[in-house]
Amino acid sequence: MSNGGNTARTRTITWEDPRALAEAGRNLSGLEYLRKIVEGSLPRPPIGALMNFTIAELSEGRAVFTVEPAEYHYNPIGVVHGGLAATLLDSAMGCAIHSTLPAGAGYTTLEIKVNFVRPMTAETGTVRCEAKVIYVGGRTATADGRVVDESGKLYAHGTTTCIIFRP
Amino acid sequence: MSNGGNTARTRTITWEDPRALAEAGRNLSGLEYLRKIVEGSLPRPPIGALMNFTIAELSEGRAVFTVEPAEYHYNPIGVVHGGLAATLLDSAMGCAIHSTLPAGAGYTTLEIKVNFVRPMTAETGTVRCEAKVIYVGGRTATADGRVVDESGKLYAHGTTTCIIFRP
Amino acid sequence: MSNGGNTARTRTITWEDPRALAEAGRNLSGLEYLRKIVEGSLPRPPIGALMNFTIAELSEGRAVFTVEPAEYHYNPIGVVHGGLAATLLDSAMGCAIHSTLPAGAGYTTLEIKVNFVRPMTAETGTVRCEAKVIYVGGRTATADGRVVDESGKLYAHGTTTCIIFRP
Amino acid sequence: MSNGGNTARTRTITWEDPRALAEAGRNLSGLEYLRKIVEGSLPRPPIGALMNFTIAELSEGRAVFTVEPAEYHYNPIGVVHGGLAATLLDSAMGCAIHSTLPAGAGYTTLEIKVNFVRPMTAETGTVRCEAKVIYVGGRTATADGRVVDESGKLYAHGTTTCIIFRP
Repeated sequence: MSNGGNTARTRTITWEDPRALAEAGRNLSGLEYLRKIVEGSLPRPPIGALMNFTIAELSEGRAVFTVEPAEYHYNPIGVVHGGLAATLLDSAMGCAIHSTLPAGAGYTTLEIKVNFVRPMTAETGTVRCEAKVIYVGGRTATADGRVVDESGKLYAHGTTTCIIFRP
Repeated sequence: MSNGGNTARTRTITWEDPRALAEAGRNLSGLEYLRKIVEGSLPRPPIGALMNFTIAELSEGRAVFTVEPAEYHYNPIGVVHGGLAATLLDSAMGCAIHSTLPAGAGYTTLEIKVNFVRPMTAETGTVRCEAKVIYVGGRTATADGRVVDESGKLYAHGTTTCIIFRP
Repeated sequence: MSNGGNTARTRTITWEDPRALAEAGRNLSGLEYLRKIVEGSLPRPPIGALMNFTIAELSEGRAVFTVEPAEYHYNPIGVVHGGLAATLLDSAMGCAIHSTLPAGAGYTTLEIKVNFVRPMTAETGTVRCEAKVIYVGGRTATADGRVVDESGKLYAHGTTTCIIFRP
Repeated sequence: MSNGGNTARTRTITWEDPRALAEAGRNLSGLEYLRKIVEGSLPRPPIGALMNFTIAELSEGRAVFTVEPAEYHYNPIGVVHGGLAATLLDSAMGCAIHSTLPAGAGYTTLEIKVNFVRPMTAETGTVRCEAKVIYVGGRTATADGRVVDESGKLYAHGTTTCIIFRP
C-alpha cells in the first residue's frame, strides 16, 4: 500500500538568510558573486531552494540554470505551471546581465516576456534554461533565454529588460 | 536567542494529486471548476501549495489571488524574486480566461508579459493579484492583471495571450 | 472605368522639421508641449503625417490618438499591417507618460508589447487609441492602451516601459 | 535659397491593390509567395511603400528587410519613431513564419514585443531587420528579430507569437 517516496506528496525545504547572501555580494563584481553561488561557497537563494533549481554554468554575459520539473510544480490543468519557466528565465536572464556588472553596480528587472511553446511534465526530465545578454548599455540591458530538455527540445523562451545602477 | 518560528528557515509543503484535480474539471465549466477550488471542495493545485498562494475571489472573467511574500520567495539580490509576481499573474490571468469557458473547452497560455514596478519584501504584507479578461474570442483570449498591497500600492502588472480549444 | 479618387493609389505627404519641433519642447512641461501639438500651434510630427494619425485628446497621464485605417496601411495578407496599431499605441502610451513630466525631464521608450485581437481594414472607419499611465516613478514609467472603433469594438491593446531622465 | 531635395519635406507614394496581392498568394506556399515579392514579380505591399522598406532576403524560416531611416519617420522628440522598428520587426518576423507554411495555410500575428536599445536617426544609414523562426508547431509559431546597421550595431529587437491556420 506504499505510494513510494516520489508520490508521498510532501517536501521539506530549507534555505539560508537571503539578506546575508545579498550583503556578501556588495563588494564583488557580478561574475565573482555568482561564481561563489555556482561553486557552493555562497548558498543558493531561497527561490532556488523553493523551486529546486540550480545555477549550473556561468560566464560573462551567459548563465545556465537547471531544474527537474516535478509534481509539486503542477497547475490546476494537469501540467507544470508556467511560473516555473517564468521564474527560471527571469533568474537566468537576470544573472546573465548581472555577470557583466562591475563591483558596486546593481540592476533590477523592469519586465520579462515569456513564450510557452510546450508543456513540461514530471516525465520531461531535467531541463536547462540558457540565457545570454543581447545588449548592455550604461543604464539598461536586455537578454533572452530558452528552456530546453536533454534532447534540445524547446519548452519556453523569453526576453527581459533591466535597469542598471552604476556607481 | 530564539530566532522564532518565522526564521527557522525550513518549511514543509504537502499537495494532492494534480492529475486527479485536472480530471475533476473535465465535465465542468471553467467557472464551476474554479469555484470548487475557491470553496475548498477541490484542493488547490501543487503550485499554490509551493508558492503559498490562494485563489480568493472568482467571477466570470475575473480572478483574484492572494499571497503573503516571505523570505522563502527571495532572490540573490535581497528582495522577493520576480517569479512570484510572474507566477501569481500567470495564475490569475489564466483563471480569469478559464472562468469564461464552457464545459469541454480548454486553454493554454501562449505567453505572459510582466512589469515589475517595485520590489516586494517579507515586510510588504499580503498582496492581491487581480486579473480580468480583455478579449475572449473563438480561438484566442487576452487578459491583464495587477499585484497590489492592502493600501492599493502597485508592485507588478502583466498581460497574457491564451489559445482556446473549443469542442 | 474610373477608379475614383480614393483608389488612385497615390498620396503625397508633407511634414515640418522635427528638430525644430523637438527644440520647441525643450523648456515646456510634457503637457504644455503636447497641448501645443493638439491645438495646432506646433505641427504634428512627421510620423503622424506619414501614418495619417492625430493626437485628439490629452490630459495629465492620458492621451488619445485617432486614425482612419486606409489601403496604404495594408500588409501582404490583405488587411491593415500590425505596424499601424503598434505605432499608434507607442505614440499614445509615450505621450501619456510624457504628459506627466515637468519641463527639463525627458523619456525614452524601452519596450512595447502589442496584442492584435482583430484585423483592421479600410472599412473599419476611424479608430481611437486611448492610453493611460499605470505607474510613474523617479526613473521608469509604464502605461497601457487600447485601439477601439466608434462602436467600442477592440482591435489591439498594448503596454510600454519607459525610462525617465529627470533634471 | 534652395533647401535641397532631401529637405523639401514632401514625398509622394504610390502602391498597388493589396487585395489582388493577397489573392495572388492563395495557391502558393509562403516561400513561393514571398519570393515573388522579393524578385519583383509581385508588388511590395502598401505598408512597404508607405514606410519605404523592402524585403531583401528570404529563405525558409528567415527573412531580412531593409530601410533607410529618414526625417519622415521622426517622432515629436527628435529621433525616428519606434513605430518604424516595430513595423519592420512585425513584417520580418511574420514573413519568417509565413515562409514555413505550405499552400493553403495562413497565419495571423497575435502579439509582438519590441525592445528599443538605441534611437535611429536620419544619419543612421540603411538598417537591416533580420528575423528567424524560433518554434513552428501545428497551431502556433514564434520568431525573433533584430534591427542592426551596416556595422552590426543593434537598434532594436523583438519577438512575436502567431496563430497558424492549417487546411
